[in-house]
Amino acid sequence: MPLIEEDVAPPEVRAVYDDIKATRRVDRVNNFWKALAAHPPTLVRTWESVKEVMAPGALDPLVKELVYIAVSVTNGCEYCIASHTAGARAKGMTEDQYGELLAVIGMANETNALANGLAVPVDDAFRTAS
Amino acid sequence: MPLIEEDVAPPEVRAVYDDIKATRRVDRVNNFWKALAAHPPTLVRTWESVKEVMAPGALDPLVKELVYIAVSVTNGCEYCIASHTAGARAKGMTEDQYGELLAVIGMANETNALANGLAVPVDDAFRTAS
Amino acid sequence: MPLIEEDVAPPEVRAVYDDIKATRRVDRVNNFWKALAAHPPTLVRTWESVKEVMAPGALDPLVKELVYIAVSVTNGCEYCIASHTAGARAKGMTEDQYGELLAVIGMANETNALANGLAVPVDDAFRTAS
Amino acid sequence: MPLIEEDVAPPEVRAVYDDIKATRRVDRVNNFWKALAAHPPTLVRTWESVKEVMAPGALDPLVKELVYIAVSVTNGCEYCIASHTAGARAKGMTEDQYGELLAVIGMANETNALANGLAVPVDDAFRTAS
Amino acid sequence: MPLIEEDVAPPEVRAVYDDIKATRRVDRVNNFWKALAAHPPTLVRTWESVKEVMAPGALDPLVKELVYIAVSVTNGCEYCIASHTAGARAKGMTEDQYGELLAVIGMANETNALANGLAVPVDDAFRTAS
Amino acid sequence: MPLIEEDVAPPEVRAVYDDIKATRRVDRVNNFWKALAAHPPTLVRTWESVKEVMAPGALDPLVKELVYIAVSVTNGCEYCIASHTAGARAKGMTEDQYGELLAVIGMANETNALANGLAVPVDDAFRTAS
Repeated sequence: MPLIEEDVAPPEVRAVYDDIKATRRVDRVNNFWKALAAHPPTLVRTWESVKEVMAPGALDPLVKELVYIAVSVTNGCEYCIASHTAGARAKGMTEDQYGELLAVIGMANETNALANGLAVPVDDAFRTAS
Repeated sequence: MPLIEEDVAPPEVRAVYDDIKATRRVDRVNNFWKALAAHPPTLVRTWESVKEVMAPGALDPLVKELVYIAVSVTNGCEYCIASHTAGARAKGMTEDQYGELLAVIGMANETNALANGLAVPVDDAFRTAS
Repeated sequence: MPLIEEDVAPPEVRAVYDDIKATRRVDRVNNFWKALAAHPPTLVRTWESVKEVMAPGALDPLVKELVYIAVSVTNGCEYCIASHTAGARAKGMTEDQYGELLAVIGMANETNALANGLAVPVDDAFRTAS
Repeated sequence: MPLIEEDVAPPEVRAVYDDIKATRRVDRVNNFWKALAAHPPTLVRTWESVKEVMAPGALDPLVKELVYIAVSVTNGCEYCIASHTAGARAKGMTEDQYGELLAVIGMANETNALANGLAVPVDDAFRTAS
Repeated sequence: MPLIEEDVAPPEVRAVYDDIKATRRVDRVNNFWKALAAHPPTLVRTWESVKEVMAPGALDPLVKELVYIAVSVTNGCEYCIASHTAGARAKGMTEDQYGELLAVIGMANETNALANGLAVPVDDAFRTAS
Repeated sequence: MPLIEEDVAPPEVRAVYDDIKATRRVDRVNNFWKALAAHPPTLVRTWESVKEVMAPGALDPLVKELVYIAVSVTNGCEYCIASHTAGARAKGMTEDQYGELLAVIGMANETNALANGLAVPVDDAFRTAS
């Protein structure tokens, strides 16, 4: 898939690029958006969803980045790990926190496999709590 | 697999159960540990690892539970979702935060698939940042 | 793993290569088959299965390629995405269709995660319909 | 998570339910949406995305349902398989087509694993075609 | 999907059922095959493949069952875990071996996630060995 | 993430490196451990777990490597496949065994998808056996 650079982007795409740069206070858009731009309706819809989901709310913005990293590592998505690790560092993630985050992600993958493999029945206490 | 109840557990297993209850300040152990107890060396090693990984450190304990949920949803582990959602609520997660967390997890799974499907090259800026 | 090139392939492997080229009306076999050829029984069985599954039937051949892409993106298999995207283009997939296909795949991955995370009970109407 | 029934839904949620019923020409909304309604912003955003992505376009609507099933089977999402199989049948999928679809999905999962396991290098021809 | 019982199976399906019972020296076929029988070509092809792959060869039959369990746990396939755990026990797997197997599978899922998350470059020594 | 080389490793890390080399009778540690060393508590815990899990026990050491490969292929973890294939070859895996192993892994991925896709009910016989 081609990457649509900013200087050749049609107006519809350019408007999204400008909004990304203004919202994130950066001066370039990263490759993910340039790749999505080959299909403008998906670019517009995906950016509107990401902007809304990642906006300040009940959860801290850095926490949202850590969750994104956890999903991306579990999915094995190289690009997503690289971009959201950069995003988390820009929001203050320290090396100690990253080391500890990877330890939690690894442990979660291990106990997930054990719980599935043992077919552990869900405790009544958890069902009540949900 | 049988669940090893507390009153019939051999001393080695009982010691782990007691440590789980003391560490978490609860009066019962949940089924995951009772299932693992069928193979005591795995019970001991897994509990020691979980206790160390989830202990207070550079990351907030509630944040660690949110990361656990993110991995568990992505892995499709029903037991793990139930137990760590209960754990997160016990540590103060509100319904608003849970709704927002699921939105981030859903969005991460969508953009992971898009980045993989488009084979987006990692930006130099992210490589430098890593 | 070595790739077994056509000019050094033993007769058993050569026969499969010839059948691939005749069935697909191409003049070269792609690397997947050259890699499988290191273990001829797997090469023969896999090709016979692929040939039968992808042959014209109740589903349109292009539809089958789109389904293959959807699974490959979700599995994160780079080789499979590349080869079946090429296959779909050869059968008439347009750039617009590919953009739209990726949008559906991304959305399916998002709502899959949401439905699992929310533990949505299956509607009776769906059970009846199945 | 509670399911928000239609007769107790707040106006914001009710408006989405009405749009789902009008768009799909059905007289009830299914559980997925009633579960999402516990967090109205996610309900609104997800429905708007699904409505846009699944609308008539470059791909046939039944094809989009088949792609959804392929992803859902690969993700192991029981609810998603049930609901999108019902959706596909409503759009004309026959039992023969479903049998053949499952055969393709199974085969794709097998060759994905083989290609990854063999670390097959991507053919130059495929890179050119992309 | 309906399960096709033995007494109502058409001749083509009946022949596969008979071969399954003869090959495995059992007097009933399990549900997996009765479900596949709704689409006879997939039943025939899948059984022929399974019979060949699981036949005695360079790997011990019990080892093959353990590999099947490892894949099934990692995929989160409840049916497959149940059936292949039964199969492995029938081939001599002890409770100790099953406990240890689950420990290896859990650990593999953990270190897989850590290696992906850390983007560990492949050692030259491994590349040479491959 | 930086790789911590042996000559600049702090004493705590050096001790783990020395134990890895002594346990495995090798004269260098591979990159996975050098990457983990950026977070020493995870290095220590992971090595202690791997050493225990992979030590001689009820399962043959080569069998454990094959199980590791099966999980790694299913996870799509390039590094893990490379390193555990090297490990299995060092423990005596032949090319024929590797070819057959990949055939089993591929088949397991296929039947996993079929069983999930067909929503096969677990046989009573399997429930009894578990």
